[in-house]
Amino acid sequence: MVGGEPAGQRQIYLSDVPLEEAQQVWLETLRARGLLRPLEAETVAAAESLHRVTAGPVYAAGSAPHYHASAVDGIAVRAEETFGASETSPVRLGPGRFRPVNTGDPLPQGFDAVVMVEDIHEIPSGEVELIGPAIPWQHVRPVGEDIVATELLLPTNHRIRPPDLGALLAAGVTEVPVRRRPRLLIIPTGDELVEPGSPPTPGAIAEFNSHVLAAMAQEWGALAARHAPVRDDAIALADALLRARDHDLVVVNAGASAGTRDFAVDALRRAGEVILHGVSIKPGRPTILGVMGKTPVVGIPGYPVTSILTFDLFVKPVVFALQGLPVPRREVVRAVTTRTIPSVMGLDEFVRVKLGEVGGRLVASPLGRGAGLISTMVRADGLLMIPRSSEGVAAGREVEVELLRPREEIARTLVVVGSHDVALDVLADFLRRRDPGVSISSAHVGSLGGLSALRRREAHMSGIHLLDEATGEYNVPYVRRYLPGEEVVLVTLAHRDQGLMVRPGNPRQIAGVEDLVREDVLFINRQRGAGTRLLLDFTCKRAGIDPVQIRGYEREAYTHMAVATAVASGAADVGLGIYAAARALGLDFLPVARERYDLVIPREYLQVPLVQEALAVLACAEFQEEVRKLGGYDTAETGRITMLEPAPA
Amino acid sequence: MVGGEPAGQRQIYLSDVPLEEAQQVWLETLRARGLLRPLEAETVAAAESLHRVTAGPVYAAGSAPHYHASAVDGIAVRAEETFGASETSPVRLGPGRFRPVNTGDPLPQGFDAVVMVEDIHEIPSGEVELIGPAIPWQHVRPVGEDIVATELLLPTNHRIRPPDLGALLAAGVTEVPVRRRPRLLIIPTGDELVEPGSPPTPGAIAEFNSHVLAAMAQEWGALAARHAPVRDDAIALADALLRARDHDLVVVNAGASAGTRDFAVDALRRAGEVILHGVSIKPGRPTILGVMGKTPVVGIPGYPVTSILTFDLFVKPVVFALQGLPVPRREVVRAVTTRTIPSVMGLDEFVRVKLGEVGGRLVASPLGRGAGLISTMVRADGLLMIPRSSEGVAAGREVEVELLRPREEIARTLVVVGSHDVALDVLADFLRRRDPGVSISSAHVGSLGGLSALRRREAHMSGIHLLDEATGEYNVPYVRRYLPGEEVVLVTLAHRDQGLMVRPGNPRQIAGVEDLVREDVLFINRQRGAGTRLLLDFTCKRAGIDPVQIRGYEREAYTHMAVATAVASGAADVGLGIYAAARALGLDFLPVARERYDLVIPREYLQVPLVQEALAVLACAEFQEEVRKLGGYDTAETGRITMLEPAPA
Repeated sequence: MVGGEPAGQRQIYLSDVPLEEAQQVWLETLRARGLLRPLEAETVAAAESLHRVTAGPVYAAGSAPHYHASAVDGIAVRAEETFGASETSPVRLGPGRFRPVNTGDPLPQGFDAVVMVEDIHEIPSGEVELIGPAIPWQHVRPVGEDIVATELLLPTNHRIRPPDLGALLAAGVTEVPVRRRPRLLIIPTGDELVEPGSPPTPGAIAEFNSHVLAAMAQEWGALAARHAPVRDDAIALADALLRARDHDLVVVNAGASAGTRDFAVDALRRAGEVILHGVSIKPGRPTILGVMGKTPVVGIPGYPVTSILTFDLFVKPVVFALQGLPVPRREVVRAVTTRTIPSVMGLDEFVRVKLGEVGGRLVASPLGRGAGLISTMVRADGLLMIPRSSEGVAAGREVEVELLRPREEIARTLVVVGSHDVALDVLADFLRRRDPGVSISSAHVGSLGGLSALRRREAHMSGIHLLDEATGEYNVPYVRRYLPGEEVVLVTLAHRDQGLMVRPGNPRQIAGVEDLVREDVLFINRQRGAGTRLLLDFTCKRAGIDPVQIRGYEREAYTHMAVATAVASGAADVGLGIYAAARALGLDFLPVARERYDLVIPREYLQVPLVQEALAVLACAEFQEEVRKLGGYDTAETGRITMLEPAPA
Repeated sequence: MVGGEPAGQRQIYLSDVPLEEAQQVWLETLRARGLLRPLEAETVAAAESLHRVTAGPVYAAGSAPHYHASAVDGIAVRAEETFGASETSPVRLGPGRFRPVNTGDPLPQGFDAVVMVEDIHEIPSGEVELIGPAIPWQHVRPVGEDIVATELLLPTNHRIRPPDLGALLAAGVTEVPVRRRPRLLIIPTGDELVEPGSPPTPGAIAEFNSHVLAAMAQEWGALAARHAPVRDDAIALADALLRARDHDLVVVNAGASAGTRDFAVDALRRAGEVILHGVSIKPGRPTILGVMGKTPVVGIPGYPVTSILTFDLFVKPVVFALQGLPVPRREVVRAVTTRTIPSVMGLDEFVRVKLGEVGGRLVASPLGRGAGLISTMVRADGLLMIPRSSEGVAAGREVEVELLRPREEIARTLVVVGSHDVALDVLADFLRRRDPGVSISSAHVGSLGGLSALRRREAHMSGIHLLDEATGEYNVPYVRRYLPGEEVVLVTLAHRDQGLMVRPGNPRQIAGVEDLVREDVLFINRQRGAGTRLLLDFTCKRAGIDPVQIRGYEREAYTHMAVATAVASGAADVGLGIYAAARALGLDFLPVARERYDLVIPREYLQVPLVQEALAVLACAEFQEEVRKLGGYDTAETGRITMLEPAPA
C-alpha cells in the first residue's frame, strides 16, 4: 500500500455510492435547499468589472456614437445643394454652405452629409468645388451606429471580458450589477500538520493542500481563505465549523493520519448534517458531503492527489453554480495506452497520465498511482478514468483522456522514455530556455523498457546504457537484438561514472562489490530492465559473486536519486548509481565503471523539429559544460551520431 | 466609409509591409537589441507564486516524505523477526518488539516494516500475533517516495499552477525566483477624448480603449497602467513618452480624429525612433512600431476594433517574450461562410464572425466590418482572416476561423437568423438564466434573409413577419414560397404593433403614411428583405402611394432600434417600427398594423435540445409577462405550434 489510498477498511462508510449518483444527490440536495442559486448582486464600477459575472441583463445607457460624427476628414455639406454636380458641371459652395470637419467631429447643425477631402477642390475665392453629388448621410457615423441606447449589451450570467469593458464604457454604463464572489473557507485538520517551511521534524507534515485548493478556487472565481490547521478533535473541529457559517462553502481537508476522517464526520454531525459519506472512486473514497445551516460543507481526504481530485469533483460545480456560470469542461482527447493499467472493480479510478504526440498519434503513459504523490499532479498531462465496471485497460487500447495541459503544449513535447539520467534534466532546461513552447516528457522505465517503448513507437527517443556481457560493447548489440530490422541512430549523451554510493565516511567500510554479500550490509537495487542493474549483475559475475546472495537485491528503486535517497536516509547502506546522484546528496562514491549513455532515435524521427532542436542543444558547448559541472561526466563524445544499419529482423 | 477605417490617403506611410514581414522585422529588431529577453528574476514566497513564471529551474530543498512514514495504521516491526510466520505457526511479538503506528507516523528507529492493523491479532498478554511474514519496508512510504531532495521540480519559464504550489511547499521550497512582471503603459492621445462617464457632449468621445487594452495585458500577465489622455500635440506626446522610459513597453493609442497618427509618429521620432509605419492589414494599417532607448513603443490606431486587433498582433508577442513564455495560439476551427465576404486586394483583412453549430457543421456569419464598432468584438465568436492575395470569400466556402470563445460555448448556442425583435433578447436572457451554458446568437438580416439562411441550414430557426399581399395572411404563404418541399413548423413568438415613430409631440404633424411623401418629411427605411419594409410597401400601395416618392426611402437601417435612434436624433423625421422600440427611446407612435411574428423551425431541428429549451421558455408565463411589459405585444398565441405540410417543391 506504499503511497496508495490509506487503508479504508476500518472506516464505516455510510454509503459507497457511484460517482454520478453522489454528484447528483449532492447537487440536488443543495438545489432543493436553495443553496445552488447564484449569489446576490453587488454593484461595481464598470471599469473595475473585468472577469466579474453579470447578475442581470446590462442595457446601454447611451448610444455610441452619441452624436452624428464625421467618419472622414473633409467638409460637411447639405446634400441637396450638391445634386447635379459632375466633372463637366462642378458645383461651387461658398462660405456658410460648407464646414470643414475632421474624423470624429460632430456633423454641424443643418448639414446632412460629408465629402471627403480627396473629393473637393479648394479654389482661391474661398469656395470649394465638387465634381460629384453627395448622398444624404454619406461619410457620417450616425448616432447609435455601434450601440443604441437601451439595447442589451450583456446578458445575465456573463463573465466580463476585455472588449465588454469597452462596450460598457462606450455605452455610458459606469456601474454594473455583478454576482458577489463566493466566499470559501478551507479548514485543514490533523495533529501532524505544520506550516510549510517549519523544520522537518519526523511526523510533522507541511500543510500545503490548503494553498493548492485555495489557488484552484481562486481560478474558478471564488474568494478562498485558509483556516489554521485544527487538531484531531471533533469538538474543536465542530467549533471551527460553526464559526465558519457565514461562508458560502466550507471545505474540511482531513489529514492523512488515522481517524482524522472519523473526527470530520463526527464534527460535521455536531455542527450540521452529513448527506453522504463514501463515494466509490479512487482516490477519494472517504469523501464527506454535508450541509451546515445554509452552508454546504465538503470533507475531502488529506492525501494531496485525492484532495485535488475530490475538490474538483464536488466543490467546483458549487463554486460555478453560485456565480451563475456553467462548469467548464476539460478538453477530451483520444490516446493509446503504453502499458496495461490494472484497476479495482467497483471503483471509478482516476489515473494521471503523461501524454506525448509521437508519429502522429497521442500516447498515454500512466504516472505513479499513489494518492500521496503531489509530484504526479505536477507532471500529469491528463486524467484517465477507468470505470468501476472494468478491471483495467490493456496496453495499446484507445482511451479518452481529460486534458490538464493545453493540447498545443503536448504537441510540442519531446517524449523520452528509458533510463534515467540527470543530464536529461539539463537538456530539458536548455530546450525550454531556447524555446519556451517546448518541453521534455521523460519517463524512467529503464534502458530495456525504453527500447520496448521505441519499438511500439511511444517515444521519440530512448536513453540507454546497456553493457553487452559477451563483447563488452555498450548499447549497439542490445539495439540490434531488441530492434531487429529497424533503422535507428545512436546519439551519445555522455560517458558517465557508475559506482557504489555509501553514506559519508563509508561507515560500513565497503571496498567493492565483494562486500555487498556481507551480512551487515543492506543493498538497494534498481528495477528489472535498468542498465544499472545489468551493470551490477555483470560486475558481480566477473567478481565471481551470485547477486541473489546480496541482502536487498530484490528491493527496487526507479531512479539514481531514489537509490541515493535510500542510502542517505539509512533505508539502505549501499546502492549502485551515477556520481551526479551521489554528489547531489553528499554521499561517498566508489567508482565501478565508466559507461556510454546513448539516445536511440528511429531514423524517421530525425527530421521531427523537436528532435532536431534537442540534437542542436547536445552539440552546444554551454550544454556540455553544464553537464560536466554535475560531476562524473565526460562529454568528449556528446552529440556524436552513429547510424546503425538495420539488423536482420 | 461609414464606420470603416479612417481615410488613410493623406497619411504618408513609411512602408506598407505585409503582416508576417512586419511582425518579423519588429521582433527581430527587438531581439537584436536585447529587448525580447525574459525580464530579470525577483524572489517571491512560494505560497504567493501562483501564475508567476519561473526565472530558473527550481530544485527540491528537501524530500517528501522527509522521513520514513507509515502508510497505514498498524504496528512497526523488524521484518526478520516475522520470517516464518503462517496461519499454522503464528509468530508472537512481545512489547518492545513492535510499536503501534498510525498513517503518517514516523517509522520508529530500529524498525523496518509495518503490518496493517487488519493483519494482527492482539492477545491479552500484551503481545501481538502475526500469521504471515512482513517483507522489509512493506507499508512504509520511504523518504523521497514523492520528491527527492535536489530533484528538478519545475523547469525555467514555467507558469506556476495550483498543484505546483503543493510540490514547492512539500519539497520545502519557501521562495521561488520568478520573472518580474512586464510593466506596460498605455498612453491615449486625442483632443476629443474624455473620461468615461463624462457628460456626452457632441465631439467628446469616452476614452475606453485604454481600459480594454489594460485588461488584455493583465490577462497576459503584465502590469498595465493607463496614462491620462494626451492632447494632439507632438511636443506634449513626446514629453509623455520620454517620461515613460522606465516601462518595459509603451503603447500610444491614437485617437480616431484626423492627424492624430501624424502626431504620434512625430512624437516618437522626437523621443526615439520609428522602425516601421504602415502594415498592410485591415483594420490596423496605420500601425507604428518603434523603440525609445530600451523601451519598445507601439502606436496603434484609435478605433476600438483596430486597437484590439493590433494590440494582439504586435504587443502580445512582446509581453509573452518578456515573461519567457510562448505566445498561446487560439484554437482554429473550420467553418462554412453564410455570405460572400468581399475584401480588398493587398490587405490582410480580419473579419469578426458569429459561429453557430447547426445540423452538425459550423457556420460563420460576418459581423459589421466597421472598425469603430466595439459591439462587434463583444458579439464575435471568431476571427476570419482574408489574405491580401484574395478579393474575398464566396458564400458556402469552408474557411479557418480563430476562436474568441470556447468551442463548447459555441456548440451550446441557439442560432436565430432573420427579423429583429426585442422579445428575442428577452428569450435569450431567460434561456441563460435557466441554464448559464446556453446562449442565443441572433443575426438581423430581415425576414426573407432568415428564410434563405434556413434553406441553407445556417440557423436553427428564423424569425419572420411577412404579410402576403394577395391573401392578407401572415408568414405561411412566404414559407411555402421560399421553402418549397420542406417540413417546417411555425411557432408564434407574439403579435406586435407596428407603427410610425415620430419625435415627441409629433413636430412634423404626421397623421399617417399619406404624409410620408411630403417635401418637408425625411423618412428612414428598413433594408430590403425586412418584413417591416414589405409592410410599408403594402400599406402605401393600399393608400395609393408610390413608395419611391418618399424622401429617404433608399436610406436603410437594420433594426427597429436603429430606426428609432435615427428619428430621436433628428437624422430622420419618421420611420416604421415596433412600439417597443419607440417606447424605449421615448418617441410618439402612430399604430399602422398588428402583425404576427413567428419562428420558423425545420422539423428535423425540433428535437435539438437547445430548440426544446427555447420552446419551453416561450410557453412559460413569466416569459410572456416580461414580453407584455415591453409594450405593444400580445402574447395570447405565444408558443403556439403550427405544423406545415411541405409545399410542392
